[in-house]
Amino acid sequence: MSDEWLKQVKWNEDGLVPAIAQDVHSGQVLMMAWMNPESLALTVAEKRAIYWSRSRQRLWRKGEDSGHVQHLHDLRLDCDGDCILMKVEQVGGIACHTGRQHCFFYALQDEQWQAVDEVLKDPHAIYSKAGE
Amino acid sequence: MSDEWLKQVKWNEDGLVPAIAQDVHSGQVLMMAWMNPESLALTVAEKRAIYWSRSRQRLWRKGEDSGHVQHLHDLRLDCDGDCILMKVEQVGGIACHTGRQHCFFYALQDEQWQAVDEVLKDPHAIYSKAGE
Repeated sequence: MSDEWLKQVKWNEDGLVPAIAQDVHSGQVLMMAWMNPESLALTVAEKRAIYWSRSRQRLWRKGEDSGHVQHLHDLRLDCDGDCILMKVEQVGGIACHTGRQHCFFYALQDEQWQAVDEVLKDPHAIYSKAGE
Repeated sequence: MSDEWLKQVKWNEDGLVPAIAQDVHSGQVLMMAWMNPESLALTVAEKRAIYWSRSRQRLWRKGEDSGHVQHLHDLRLDCDGDCILMKVEQVGGIACHTGRQHCFFYALQDEQWQAVDEVLKDPHAIYSKAGE
């Protein structure tokens, strides 16, 4: 497989690009994480979201611990070549490690960030070992 | 106005966070750009998307040249505190400097990035002076 398309992505100084995952059914933006060339290539090859974990410095197959796999339906690159947008089918309906549907649950109210979205599943029940 | 909420955002080493703009009506993810503390504070205060232009190293009031202002309807911070999601009303229905509705118009087809979304307006007709 030619990797010319990978070279056309504008990787940042750390060799990463931000990747946005959007629920293919509801349109909800689920999360934003990072990809390196290997993780992007694997995302395309395996048709599931595979990120690069900056905290753990390793590939992160979304759902590897939680089962909350993101099956890839569509993958786009933006006009500047420095951001990825994926439409995904979110297994379990939970993308966030806090047990919520998505990660963007802090709303600004009275000059404070307030968690406004429901926890669907106790994180302790999601992860058998270390959290994602 | 207290700026404690601004301090709770996890700014990167350049003092920025990625900010995603999503169309409040269609759910289409329009673009991703960057914000510094001042631009985020102004976005909230002026209820319109105001980014930090990395290329021009200055505040970028989206639509300042094009008229394609993004009126803010909802603003969220993610679980890690390092990414912003906005729901916006996109004036003119065009977010991208190429004249498209959104910036994520490159799809991967036959191992090549192909522009698959329609240009709604000639960029030369959008910008009277230097492009955004």
